[in-house]
Amino acid sequence: MVKQALWIVSILLASSVAMAQETSIVHDGEFEFLRAQFGEEWDAQDLKIDTRLAEIRETNGGKPPNILYILIDDVSFGQMGSRTLNYVTGIDTPNINEFASEGMSLMRMYTEPSCTPTRAAFLTGRQPYRAGIEEVKVALVGEGLAAEEVTIAEILKEEGYNTSHVGKWHQGDIEQAYPHNQGFDWAAFPLHQQVQLSLMTREAMQANNMLGFHASGQSNEFALDQRFNPYGLVTGVEAEAGGMAREVDLEPGEEWTQAHYEEMNERYQRQIIEQLEDLAAKDEPFFLQYWPLYPLNFVYPEQAISRNGGFHADKLQLLDGWLGELFEKVDELGISDNTIVVLMADNGLMYHYEGTSGLSQLIYRGGKTQHLEGGVRTDAFVRWPGVIEAGSAAGDIVHVSDLFTTFARIAGATEHIPRDRVIDGIDQTALLLEGEGNSRRDYVYNYEGLTLRSVVKREFKMHVPPPGVPGAAAPVFNIYRDPREENPQIGNALWAGASFQDMIKRHVLKINEYPHLPLGKGKPYEGIENLRPESVETREVFDSWH
Amino acid sequence: MVKQALWIVSILLASSVAMAQETSIVHDGEFEFLRAQFGEEWDAQDLKIDTRLAEIRETNGGKPPNILYILIDDVSFGQMGSRTLNYVTGIDTPNINEFASEGMSLMRMYTEPSCTPTRAAFLTGRQPYRAGIEEVKVALVGEGLAAEEVTIAEILKEEGYNTSHVGKWHQGDIEQAYPHNQGFDWAAFPLHQQVQLSLMTREAMQANNMLGFHASGQSNEFALDQRFNPYGLVTGVEAEAGGMAREVDLEPGEEWTQAHYEEMNERYQRQIIEQLEDLAAKDEPFFLQYWPLYPLNFVYPEQAISRNGGFHADKLQLLDGWLGELFEKVDELGISDNTIVVLMADNGLMYHYEGTSGLSQLIYRGGKTQHLEGGVRTDAFVRWPGVIEAGSAAGDIVHVSDLFTTFARIAGATEHIPRDRVIDGIDQTALLLEGEGNSRRDYVYNYEGLTLRSVVKREFKMHVPPPGVPGAAAPVFNIYRDPREENPQIGNALWAGASFQDMIKRHVLKINEYPHLPLGKGKPYEGIENLRPESVETREVFDSWH
Repeated sequence: MVKQALWIVSILLASSVAMAQETSIVHDGEFEFLRAQFGEEWDAQDLKIDTRLAEIRETNGGKPPNILYILIDDVSFGQMGSRTLNYVTGIDTPNINEFASEGMSLMRMYTEPSCTPTRAAFLTGRQPYRAGIEEVKVALVGEGLAAEEVTIAEILKEEGYNTSHVGKWHQGDIEQAYPHNQGFDWAAFPLHQQVQLSLMTREAMQANNMLGFHASGQSNEFALDQRFNPYGLVTGVEAEAGGMAREVDLEPGEEWTQAHYEEMNERYQRQIIEQLEDLAAKDEPFFLQYWPLYPLNFVYPEQAISRNGGFHADKLQLLDGWLGELFEKVDELGISDNTIVVLMADNGLMYHYEGTSGLSQLIYRGGKTQHLEGGVRTDAFVRWPGVIEAGSAAGDIVHVSDLFTTFARIAGATEHIPRDRVIDGIDQTALLLEGEGNSRRDYVYNYEGLTLRSVVKREFKMHVPPPGVPGAAAPVFNIYRDPREENPQIGNALWAGASFQDMIKRHVLKINEYPHLPLGKGKPYEGIENLRPESVETREVFDSWH
Repeated sequence: MVKQALWIVSILLASSVAMAQETSIVHDGEFEFLRAQFGEEWDAQDLKIDTRLAEIRETNGGKPPNILYILIDDVSFGQMGSRTLNYVTGIDTPNINEFASEGMSLMRMYTEPSCTPTRAAFLTGRQPYRAGIEEVKVALVGEGLAAEEVTIAEILKEEGYNTSHVGKWHQGDIEQAYPHNQGFDWAAFPLHQQVQLSLMTREAMQANNMLGFHASGQSNEFALDQRFNPYGLVTGVEAEAGGMAREVDLEPGEEWTQAHYEEMNERYQRQIIEQLEDLAAKDEPFFLQYWPLYPLNFVYPEQAISRNGGFHADKLQLLDGWLGELFEKVDELGISDNTIVVLMADNGLMYHYEGTSGLSQLIYRGGKTQHLEGGVRTDAFVRWPGVIEAGSAAGDIVHVSDLFTTFARIAGATEHIPRDRVIDGIDQTALLLEGEGNSRRDYVYNYEGLTLRSVVKREFKMHVPPPGVPGAAAPVFNIYRDPREENPQIGNALWAGASFQDMIKRHVLKINEYPHLPLGKGKPYEGIENLRPESVETREVFDSWH
């Protein structure tokens, strides 16, 4: 009893220290602008929240909550978690819908518009342009997430979490960027992404989705360069922290096929279950990532399982079943109450394959690569039984980077967040614990790559006009009235245009104060112990000009 | 006891007679094509259903179920009944959402693309082109629903129902078309529609939504015709069956204003509650229609109540509250269990006011007047506690005309459906009682006015090509994969195009066998006992050239 009381005191002390340091996190100018309006209110609320977090921890014998973070690829808002929209698309996601009903639906989660940036934003709590990060291409690049970036895995590790990663990574082909060098104790991941894994196959060429790549479908006797078509790329690897990665999917000389891709997906599904079992059995809390490659897939299965039948849609329904297994395993292991599970997508659909993929622009316009709502709005659900109200929803604005800061806070690891750079992620613990209306963010800056393309405040969104064009002439949309951003209204622009320009000024001032950090650079494919000869050859050709 | 047993026997006998006659209802060729494939199965199911209907009636002391039919104006699929989509639009409809959760959501309800046609299809069970019906314009037309058409109100009246209508009617300005001459014991309705009532005001001109109509905003000294701007139109009237209508909203010489429009809406809300109370107190079952004029409205209120704030959106949220009162009254009167309540919209949004109205093309493309899914897909919910499963949903195709045949069946009034004309409405009692997968329709023919514009079968939809163009060259869409009908696929058209052409042949053959009936014609404004002098004058000018 005495020991427990002491424990609570120590937690409260630790968190008040953390809070003191929290105030010194460097946030974007817009957050400071809000903090100037709401700081006292938030500080008072934070005291209450610290008490609540300490109580929760006490209930769990002093163990901070486990975190399971599931990030699905390229699925726009509305494609998962809603029965109504299941009917529209002919894709059933009963397990995701049920999962959603057990926690809070974040109805206005913003991501970055592409895979690499969203994942980097989550991992570092920073919008990716701040570290020079754009979408990592499929070929060798010799670039990636810099060692200097501090990931949520590193932060949670400092606090004693065990950390594992399973599935897509997409943070570059240089050694410092690999997950086991970025805070994960163990990782199974492909070095590249689905353009390699699900499209660069004979089957995807025959399905008419990958054109001109595979030699069996197109050869040109006048071709000179034998490296224009990517060749010898590393596929799936596994590694432990501090160790070498080991390629596990291909033997030397073997060709990557749709069957390999399907096996890889199935393997990750097996591995996430295994990891969950292993980590749940340990004394320490865990942080576990599952970043599936599906629904991206470009070849029809032997037999479709969904009414939709499109090659993405069908795999989304398959994935729903797989996630059902995973959720069941969480329950079966008896860790549900002390495990925060977040499920979301990384960005909008790959609209380039509309009509046959089965995923279409549904509510919002646009998709992957675009700053339009269809590119940066995704379904997001958070479950934490007994803490987050089941069946709840929040219409507040949240950005994927907020999860970084929020997870750190909940784990009691806020003090490990670096203070020498801008952290975009806002602590949203109040929203999760106190419910709708408690977000500390009412804005988002939407970038495409390194370029600011739009600014969101409340229900208003300005598409950034070309340089020199005044805000009053920029297209400003009311997202509630015009979710597809098709009818800009001068009546909005004439007052909000100027306010948006002020927002941009506050944003740029902070960039001037904290200039962007450089992208990680290096030789590709280092730190892999069993590079295939064709990968060695590819790297040598790459190095020869580099 | 003996009396009850006799009752059941008489019901079973009556319904087996009804069923024998049901087979002789003249349906479209496509239904006969389906019946040839499923007739025996359906007959067996119908026997079971008749037993069930008799049991339900017995439970209610022999009283057939009351029917309350609520039809909302110009709201596309997804705008009501879904929390997710409430968040998207910033329009809260908690009462409708709760109502939806208490019954079955019809996820694929097709309507006609405009007010008059959808309402006529419901009233007569016939697609409106069969009776020459197109959208009734706002000015004097001397046309309307023909006396020869047999409405669901007339059919239910034959079976002893009391019948009332409150709200929008929009079936023409001739006496035979008035609701109290089409089967309703009592009716309160405006003679025209919202273009007159919500737009032809000084306030709508000042709100910049009605241009060039009101003399206070635009006058032209060179104008000759004083009747180009409609003038002296009759507004709201009330009447009893067989009696004269009486204008109730305007005094002679008075100008119609936004305040009048709001009062009219509020009056209909009061009157629907009054009607419900009166009808519930009677021994006979009732058929009661509430066809609100809201959300159509073009002037901002003193203070918006929704986050969206658009002039349609805000009234939709207001209407949600009003419907909440109505649903509560149904419960309070103790008639919930024996009352079927259907709530739906008549067609897609009035997209012409997108950006400011607050309703936008959301999931499906298009709106009012268009055969696109955005024009003919609306939210539809059916509640019948203890009979229809709460929280259920059906992805089956249903057409608004099916309600005619289904209501008749449930009321035991099938025998009164005329046998001398095509009835498009399919009996969907099996769907309501046995649940999803029991629709007897997998097709719809979509007309715009008198022109066939598209044909739907399952998830496929062909836009009808111009005459002479073969089906293989017509755009064919997969609605699940491409809800916005933007990516026609030759791979669909090359097989389905021919099948669609066959469907059209079956449809046209039946039209040749049962030619269209004529639209009702007559002198406008007859049967109104207190015509204002300005209305008399307007009719005289109309008659002078007619």
